[in-house]
Amino acid sequence: MIRIKDSTMDNFTYCAPTRILFGKGTIPAIAPHISAHGVQRLLLVFGGGSARRNGVYDALTAALRAAGILWDEFWGVKPNPSLEQVNAGIAKARVFDAQGVLAVGGGSVIDCGKAIAAGVHLDDYWTFVETRKPAERALPVFAVLTLSGTSSEMNDKAVITNEAEAKKWSIGGQCLAPKVTAIDPQVQATLPWSLTASSGIDAMTHVMENYFRGRPATAGNSFFREETQLQINEALLRSIVLSLNALQKDSASYDARANLAWAACWGLNGMSVAGLSSGDWTSHALEHALSGLFPHIPHGAGLAVLFPSWMEEVYTFAPDIFARFARNVWGISCNPADPASVLEAADKGVTATRAAFSGWGAPDNLSHWGVREEHIPVMVQNAYSYRALGRLVPLNEEQVTRIYKRVL
Amino acid sequence: MIRIKDSTMDNFTYCAPTRILFGKGTIPAIAPHISAHGVQRLLLVFGGGSARRNGVYDALTAALRAAGILWDEFWGVKPNPSLEQVNAGIAKARVFDAQGVLAVGGGSVIDCGKAIAAGVHLDDYWTFVETRKPAERALPVFAVLTLSGTSSEMNDKAVITNEAEAKKWSIGGQCLAPKVTAIDPQVQATLPWSLTASSGIDAMTHVMENYFRGRPATAGNSFFREETQLQINEALLRSIVLSLNALQKDSASYDARANLAWAACWGLNGMSVAGLSSGDWTSHALEHALSGLFPHIPHGAGLAVLFPSWMEEVYTFAPDIFARFARNVWGISCNPADPASVLEAADKGVTATRAAFSGWGAPDNLSHWGVREEHIPVMVQNAYSYRALGRLVPLNEEQVTRIYKRVL
Repeated sequence: MIRIKDSTMDNFTYCAPTRILFGKGTIPAIAPHISAHGVQRLLLVFGGGSARRNGVYDALTAALRAAGILWDEFWGVKPNPSLEQVNAGIAKARVFDAQGVLAVGGGSVIDCGKAIAAGVHLDDYWTFVETRKPAERALPVFAVLTLSGTSSEMNDKAVITNEAEAKKWSIGGQCLAPKVTAIDPQVQATLPWSLTASSGIDAMTHVMENYFRGRPATAGNSFFREETQLQINEALLRSIVLSLNALQKDSASYDARANLAWAACWGLNGMSVAGLSSGDWTSHALEHALSGLFPHIPHGAGLAVLFPSWMEEVYTFAPDIFARFARNVWGISCNPADPASVLEAADKGVTATRAAFSGWGAPDNLSHWGVREEHIPVMVQNAYSYRALGRLVPLNEEQVTRIYKRVL
Repeated sequence: MIRIKDSTMDNFTYCAPTRILFGKGTIPAIAPHISAHGVQRLLLVFGGGSARRNGVYDALTAALRAAGILWDEFWGVKPNPSLEQVNAGIAKARVFDAQGVLAVGGGSVIDCGKAIAAGVHLDDYWTFVETRKPAERALPVFAVLTLSGTSSEMNDKAVITNEAEAKKWSIGGQCLAPKVTAIDPQVQATLPWSLTASSGIDAMTHVMENYFRGRPATAGNSFFREETQLQINEALLRSIVLSLNALQKDSASYDARANLAWAACWGLNGMSVAGLSSGDWTSHALEHALSGLFPHIPHGAGLAVLFPSWMEEVYTFAPDIFARFARNVWGISCNPADPASVLEAADKGVTATRAAFSGWGAPDNLSHWGVREEHIPVMVQNAYSYRALGRLVPLNEEQVTRIYKRVL
């Protein structure tokens, strides 16, 4: 094999096999795909009931009926879906002898659907989660997306909260990737702004968790080691920002809904991390520890508070990529040859991020959710219980404590 | 279903299920994937022999041997692979009773491998191409990429030239998408610059064929109907430009090879066209007519000549998107509120594209390949034989003639 001079971009594997049916009126089109996968008995998994109000339930079940598919229904999946719900869903799928799962909702519902699909083949769901192994078998998963943000519609992961142990842990595995997902942005037109904003911020943080691992190919160079992926990630971030700004003015704009949905889909489907050394993911670990203890905190809202605090903690360790972020996402210029200018731009990028999140009405502190200083040590311990924190910069408990405390 | 105000982005289906093994030393890793797909007898398809010189052949066959896979070899696929070669490959695959095809090369070799994989199930390959139907069955296809540009490594299409009829036509079909592709950018380190440049330009034109269908969401708005996709496409274009500039100085830069390879992969795998109304693809039709008649013309080099001429022919019909392209790819600013400024920027964007292609050493005229004025009517007829030309702007024969003549 040929010797090459500089070898710096990380190796990676990319595979996102989900077929996406995107656009107006695409929900009924999923039914023939379900049949084509040989599924005749289907468990439908829903959230709190919005699918009945926005017409999705009627459109979908008419199409399933026309395709000759039998189904049972599991309703009531809540944000931060719980192990109890997963176990109840598994029991229902077994009784019905389901051959596939169709999740209708946002990331929480789809995650719960995936966990059920894997769980029917397991003795005990949580025991398996604790092994941290990828799932090898699952019923085929399908999805109809009604809230964009998590990428669960196009990835092979599910996050479930064990409330008794205050642990919000994920499982993965190729078999969990939805075979087909229908995304009709029209059904998101009536979502409340706060949910739109926090879900959009969630999608941004998925991209950002990976983005900040980017490094200049050579010091002072404008060409980065993972140039293509950084460019794509910036593209996703800019489009989410533009879409959210447009939706804040007009929540029914189809184009803004569609562009937000399409960008969010790519935030966490394996794309945004390509070559970027598994990303950092400290903020997500901290949010999981937070909402593990306070399950009523929306995932995206928790991240909106924690992510800028993480940025503030670490940007001095990797000013080049933070300055690039400031320039290419927020239009903050700097002189790349002057370290002081780079550092200043990096700092301004953190401020701009916090300002954008606040401008969209996201919370900027933990106290209003009832989090108090005494909870922080518990969350710090919990955050470390899954793995060591800080891939970009290894973080000790003192630093992690500061990230929470800064936004208390 | 909810009524929404402005509904403009096109519906689309996206599916690119190929598993990509990307990075240094990933070629042997494909062997266990081939076994996992149940393939024990494999037809290897190669180009002219570079795989023997750059170590790919040895690394790959050692891995196949270790995985217990038997193989036969089909060598000599040329650029613009011919129907004759496809038929010879089909015969070889049948005699060997191949259960799968592994193409080792650039887009031509992979296209030929796909055609062979589909062809073993067909009575006659070209008769099927003429039906313009998608292929329904094919042997599983695998690929080891040694020249980035076409995206064939991650898409479900193959273009084959029927030299007797001077037709360069494609087939498609889900079953043609490679199951797994290994991309080790190291093996491209010794490619001649002209081939690197023309292949990179080829990848750019794939993105650009789709890009120019973008439209402002509302007139004078900076937010476009397909904002996410345009942002991503600009990201791909910028990264290819940066990578080519870096490779022109240092053809062995791993980072530049890797970023070019990763960006090119996304040029034509179904991503760059999402929401963009099937793209335009006039320049490709014109290039196919050109290299159908002159099979020695490299595809990317033909496009480097024709694409700017197409741009010049049509930019006045869609100045907003051409001005956006000029700004976001070449840094040419304009005042979006002033139509004259928009038109001027659009024009400068065409000039900048031509200048970049020339700066990379690409040809800027057809004459030096022996094309003369008398060939133009034949090429025009051939270009129209597949379909009407001009989705962005419908083009008549006079306009198409002008596109060829401008760069004669």
